[in-house]
Amino acid sequence: MREVWSTADVERLAAERSAPDVWDYIAGGSGEEVTLAANRAALDRVAVVPRALVDVSTCDPGCELFGAWSTLPLAVAPMAYQRLIHEGGERAAAAAAAAAGVPYVVSTLSSDPIEDVAAAGGTTWFQLYWLRDREVVVKLLRRAEEAGCRAVVLTVDVPVLGRRLRDLRNGFALPSWVKPVNTDGEVGERVPGDSAIARHTSAVFDPSLSWRDLEWIRARTSLPLVLKGVLDARDAARAVDLGVRGVVVSNHGGRQLDGAVPSAVALPEVVAAVAGRCPVLLDSGVRSGVDVLRALALGASAVLVGRPVLWGLAAGGERGVTAVLDVLRAEFETALRLAGCPDVASARHLTVARGSCVHGA
Amino acid sequence: MREVWSTADVERLAAERSAPDVWDYIAGGSGEEVTLAANRAALDRVAVVPRALVDVSTCDPGCELFGAWSTLPLAVAPMAYQRLIHEGGERAAAAAAAAAGVPYVVSTLSSDPIEDVAAAGGTTWFQLYWLRDREVVVKLLRRAEEAGCRAVVLTVDVPVLGRRLRDLRNGFALPSWVKPVNTDGEVGERVPGDSAIARHTSAVFDPSLSWRDLEWIRARTSLPLVLKGVLDARDAARAVDLGVRGVVVSNHGGRQLDGAVPSAVALPEVVAAVAGRCPVLLDSGVRSGVDVLRALALGASAVLVGRPVLWGLAAGGERGVTAVLDVLRAEFETALRLAGCPDVASARHLTVARGSCVHGA
Amino acid sequence: MREVWSTADVERLAAERSAPDVWDYIAGGSGEEVTLAANRAALDRVAVVPRALVDVSTCDPGCELFGAWSTLPLAVAPMAYQRLIHEGGERAAAAAAAAAGVPYVVSTLSSDPIEDVAAAGGTTWFQLYWLRDREVVVKLLRRAEEAGCRAVVLTVDVPVLGRRLRDLRNGFALPSWVKPVNTDGEVGERVPGDSAIARHTSAVFDPSLSWRDLEWIRARTSLPLVLKGVLDARDAARAVDLGVRGVVVSNHGGRQLDGAVPSAVALPEVVAAVAGRCPVLLDSGVRSGVDVLRALALGASAVLVGRPVLWGLAAGGERGVTAVLDVLRAEFETALRLAGCPDVASARHLTVARGSCVHGA
Amino acid sequence: MREVWSTADVERLAAERSAPDVWDYIAGGSGEEVTLAANRAALDRVAVVPRALVDVSTCDPGCELFGAWSTLPLAVAPMAYQRLIHEGGERAAAAAAAAAGVPYVVSTLSSDPIEDVAAAGGTTWFQLYWLRDREVVVKLLRRAEEAGCRAVVLTVDVPVLGRRLRDLRNGFALPSWVKPVNTDGEVGERVPGDSAIARHTSAVFDPSLSWRDLEWIRARTSLPLVLKGVLDARDAARAVDLGVRGVVVSNHGGRQLDGAVPSAVALPEVVAAVAGRCPVLLDSGVRSGVDVLRALALGASAVLVGRPVLWGLAAGGERGVTAVLDVLRAEFETALRLAGCPDVASARHLTVARGSCVHGA
Ligand SMILES: Cc1cc2nc3c(=O)[nH]c(=O)nc-3n(C[C@H](O)[C@H](O)[C@H](O)COP(=O)(O)O)c2cc1C
Ligand SMILES: Cc1cc2nc3c(=O)[nH]c(=O)nc-3n(C[C@H](O)[C@H](O)[C@H](O)COP(=O)(O)O)c2cc1C
Ligand SMILES: Cc1cc2nc3c(=O)[nH]c(=O)nc-3n(C[C@H](O)[C@H](O)[C@H](O)COP(=O)(O)O)c2cc1C
Ligand SMILES: Cc1cc2nc3c(=O)[nH]c(=O)nc-3n(C[C@H](O)[C@H](O)[C@H](O)COP(=O)(O)O)c2cc1C
Repeated sequence: MREVWSTADVERLAAERSAPDVWDYIAGGSGEEVTLAANRAALDRVAVVPRALVDVSTCDPGCELFGAWSTLPLAVAPMAYQRLIHEGGERAAAAAAAAAGVPYVVSTLSSDPIEDVAAAGGTTWFQLYWLRDREVVVKLLRRAEEAGCRAVVLTVDVPVLGRRLRDLRNGFALPSWVKPVNTDGEVGERVPGDSAIARHTSAVFDPSLSWRDLEWIRARTSLPLVLKGVLDARDAARAVDLGVRGVVVSNHGGRQLDGAVPSAVALPEVVAAVAGRCPVLLDSGVRSGVDVLRALALGASAVLVGRPVLWGLAAGGERGVTAVLDVLRAEFETALRLAGCPDVASARHLTVARGSCVHGA
Repeated sequence: MREVWSTADVERLAAERSAPDVWDYIAGGSGEEVTLAANRAALDRVAVVPRALVDVSTCDPGCELFGAWSTLPLAVAPMAYQRLIHEGGERAAAAAAAAAGVPYVVSTLSSDPIEDVAAAGGTTWFQLYWLRDREVVVKLLRRAEEAGCRAVVLTVDVPVLGRRLRDLRNGFALPSWVKPVNTDGEVGERVPGDSAIARHTSAVFDPSLSWRDLEWIRARTSLPLVLKGVLDARDAARAVDLGVRGVVVSNHGGRQLDGAVPSAVALPEVVAAVAGRCPVLLDSGVRSGVDVLRALALGASAVLVGRPVLWGLAAGGERGVTAVLDVLRAEFETALRLAGCPDVASARHLTVARGSCVHGA
Repeated sequence: MREVWSTADVERLAAERSAPDVWDYIAGGSGEEVTLAANRAALDRVAVVPRALVDVSTCDPGCELFGAWSTLPLAVAPMAYQRLIHEGGERAAAAAAAAAGVPYVVSTLSSDPIEDVAAAGGTTWFQLYWLRDREVVVKLLRRAEEAGCRAVVLTVDVPVLGRRLRDLRNGFALPSWVKPVNTDGEVGERVPGDSAIARHTSAVFDPSLSWRDLEWIRARTSLPLVLKGVLDARDAARAVDLGVRGVVVSNHGGRQLDGAVPSAVALPEVVAAVAGRCPVLLDSGVRSGVDVLRALALGASAVLVGRPVLWGLAAGGERGVTAVLDVLRAEFETALRLAGCPDVASARHLTVARGSCVHGA
Repeated sequence: MREVWSTADVERLAAERSAPDVWDYIAGGSGEEVTLAANRAALDRVAVVPRALVDVSTCDPGCELFGAWSTLPLAVAPMAYQRLIHEGGERAAAAAAAAAGVPYVVSTLSSDPIEDVAAAGGTTWFQLYWLRDREVVVKLLRRAEEAGCRAVVLTVDVPVLGRRLRDLRNGFALPSWVKPVNTDGEVGERVPGDSAIARHTSAVFDPSLSWRDLEWIRARTSLPLVLKGVLDARDAARAVDLGVRGVVVSNHGGRQLDGAVPSAVALPEVVAAVAGRCPVLLDSGVRSGVDVLRALALGASAVLVGRPVLWGLAAGGERGVTAVLDVLRAEFETALRLAGCPDVASARHLTVARGSCVHGA
């Protein structure tokens, strides 16, 4: 792989190597892609006020996340069907994450089985979609536990799939060698003008998931439960009240509700509402170590990184993902030091400015 | 008709099929078209904060509007001279609205007679322009009632026509087969460098319409009276005090006062001033189901959709309008579910963010 | 002259017909032209909230200004050397203003004598630059009074000339037939890489003008004294305390201090500080009747229009200026009616919105 | 050298004459160069409200800085390796500064020895990088004192070097004739895909610099100690409490923490926290005399100018730097007069507006 200095370099390589419809599936958002763009704009507007005269000769970018140590305040976001992008699939990506010492979140819709992914040896979390068939849900939770997963990430922003116009226009479907293996499913045939992914989601996902189901899930797993896809501070507070152990402020990378608030805008109020009772993570638009620092300065404990990992996979399989994580680590370590932070905890006390005013303390 | 995934797809088709001067008449705004652009920018800036963990397995996008059920919180805005755009004219558009189960607002200046439009069988509202000849006004109200219209929408933002430079430059006039049939009028000849529409408006519209005329109108119809074109909250409050039953926050799609406030900016104060005493609708710039959700989140009860319906008409007559309404419905239903709203009422409790702050509750 | 629908149409014609260096002299601002651009951006951001249901069948766009009636809340800004642009010079422009019934402000640096300009028959105001030679100042005041001028407009924002890079690069100088005839001066030779205008200003203008000179001027003329080029509210208040009868909030069309506040941003605080004790006018960037309405809604009593008048002059002499004033009148009358204002006074009570909030009354 | 009217003119000349990798080294920022761009955007948004009617016939643009008079509120920022850009190196630049009567800050990493630079005869300040080898630090302080430097500027924003992607991509290294002569160092070989500058920094700079080292430094020099690279107001206050005699609000021209707050945004809070106890300077993005005025209006005592001086050096050696300083002086003097300020002190009482509001007093 050619030399890369930023995730944008990897994105360029990945775009060259990917089939156009697969690229659209990865890159696209829903609707007019307003939220997709707004995620970046919101992060770019977050200006950090660095501290001076702090000894950063040693600087530890690691942190504990749900009982395990991560070498960075970062996990790989759950993303379906990674064999679409590279034959190495989830195993390759998880292997890179394991080697890098960061958690890998395996999707309900992974194209490699949970067990194979967990066998990569790093910290694995299991991402759960709420399926109509509750027996399958129970079985998945059991398998995740047995495979050694350390957390269950329940995604709450996909009662139905967002309208992803690129996939609809492309009549997007999966090739025969990519399947949701954990659920023994078939995503379905290619139908011009329709998205097989959307049809499959609507067939197997249960849009009735609600607060009362939380208790049901908690009773069925001993793993810490994390909610992914929370944007309203009231929902975050309620989740914590009900025993949820972590919250991911996310708009699913701009792929679900177009017009949804950028996660970096929603984050501070969620952090305030949670008031330290559990970690608050952020995703959607994180592209650099500076973005990780921005998220921490806004009060996040860590971030999930989505598409950049897929870019790495597309560009070079496991080595590509390693390259992406290396870039993020180098950027974050530098950013942390330049912000005068010897560790992750101190980054959460940085002040941020937006527009032309300085806020915070 | 080719497949369409958003109203922008229909717009493209319509632009291809329309005569340039007719297209300018539809698409244009007044003056420098600052308000035309600002309407969109204001809506794009409205970021919705979705709710999580609400059962949306059933989701009803319908609502009552002035005593009748609509399958969407949306009506077709009154727009003059629809035969200009397609021979099917108002009848075709109204038929599509009827089939879709949404109200159609027939303009005083329709090119098909009120009665033919109402015969399409859906909910019809009659839009009244204040004409110099009061006998004609009375006659129109009588005809609207007899044709079965369910509301009278009095447009208050056209004491004179906005300066629509495209029409002036084009010397825009109507072809011989398009006429304001309800008033037996003739819009007039083509005069280079002048707009026949503007001359006609100035000849027949009465710019003296004022608060004291409201009572006169109310006494002459049993139908609920709705004011269209209100932007100042004080005017909205006064209207409700005087017995008006609905208010449309609108700048006429940027076609009247250039430099007027975007309706999405004006909306929250109007909603506050009306304080639930009647429905507040919004129009000007609504292009998607997400925009409908944005309007509801800002406090609107429903929206009017203008140009997109004309795009549908131009692109494929009744089928084209159906396609537009289908897209809006699909978008809105998805948006509602993704926002965690099982119905229209709950959307009005969503929080919105603008710029980089979250407001509301 | 071809048909024109907006001042931008006239601008295009004027640009075609003007020598490049003369065009640069007219169009340019100082420095990086940040203020030049900001003037327009600030006006475009002012969104007016129109009132509904006001009888505008009669609508009077006229107002009194310093004791004389103007058919519009608008005067022609003082601009030097108008023979540069058209042989008709100031006389042609003043004749058009007189015919239109709006005041014309004749510059100290006019290329036609004060008396000839005043003879055009309309309302004339004399603009005074503070010259090193006080005898000349006294003589000019005397001439202005005798010629029938109705006000003295003392320009306070030119202690030295702004750095107008276009003129410096062009080595701009006046042709032999254009001279500051009122002061019997010669602007000077063409020197490559220098501006003759700047050299002349620095030779004859007195940068020592200060508050203590105001009394000296007031004692030497019976005409109402107006200060042009005030941006700080404290200065405006002090001026009124000292008997000044009008204030023009202006940054000289972006030609003096680059980086100065846009006049539309500075206006509201000046209006508040003046608190109705004298008229507050605005200039810098006014290009349409909608801009006039915006200025009134922000609290101005009237505006000065600069460059558009020169565009008219360049495009067609007196007829060109008439065309510009006709466009402005048509735009303003329409805007006034569409804002629900039967007269100029009511426009000052309109609410304005900036960005995404509504402010005001 | 061709005629130049603004620093942008000099920039164009310099870009033409520089080797691409050297140009990238000068022009570039770190990361995505968000802060680099934001510095300019923040300054452009600062709109100054000029005062009227102040006698500016005499106008003194000079001020005292750390006990010596400067003819402008401006010093040349410390910048390493100036022989890279022109054979005249630091001596040429310092000679131009001396002739112009403004302080020159010589970098620890100058390519001409401190003594040669100070011999240029103007006011010289010595910029100190915190080196692992404390004996070298002590020796440098001694040499600076003996060479007649008037202040020590301790740079606190380079515990490690920012990720400057241009240099990484270029594999940037110094030619054999350019060396950090003060420390007898060698920056190192050209390595493709790596920056020799970054390797050298990491080898010799000490990232452990912290508050407790301040006392150590203060005890080792009699010169006033100035901190460069402070952005957080709390750090500024603490520094002053510890006896620091000046603070430079700076993000190192966007070359260190990408995502750091623009210095013009951070400035007002630092000024408030310092509360007049020592001068606060600003750098990062200053390109014109108007920018100097903006900084003063925001509360700065003076500015440092970085890249424009290098542009001058590249364009024409000492004469080029003189041209840049001449432009800045002409611009600043004009700006000061046009703002109604007879001296530098009064500029600090100007009001500024940002966006569409006026602040201050
Ligand atoms: C191709 C793709 C597939 C995804 N699949 C899942 C998934 O299976 N489960 C899930 O919770 N989120 C899924 N997401 C959302 C990510 O977990 C994450 O929220 C999002 O990608 C973060 O934004 P970013 O890509 O801008 O970093 C997917 C995202 C992408 C791009
Ligand atoms: C071609 C056209 C004709 C219109 N005719 C009328 C009309 O006759 N009566 C009326 O009240 N509004 C009329 N309008 C305004 C619409 O009712 C509505 O306020 C506007 O189109 C909403 O903005 P939108 O087009 O951006 O959705 C017209 C708009 C257009 C585009
Ligand atoms: C070519 C030109 C010459 C000017 N000459 C004068 C002048 O002699 N006296 C004066 O007070 N203002 C002068 N001004 C400034 C105008 O009076 C006015 O403040 C400015 O043009 C308003 O901005 P606008 O051109 O954007 O409308 C001049 C402006 C221009 C464009
Ligand atoms: C090529 C270059 C080299 C620099 N070297 C140093 C240095 O040796 N020491 C230091 O404190 N700052 C250094 N700086 C930062 C400058 O002192 C200053 O903070 C910055 O250039 C100001 O921004 P500006 O270039 O936008 O004016 C350097 C900057 C540049 C562009």
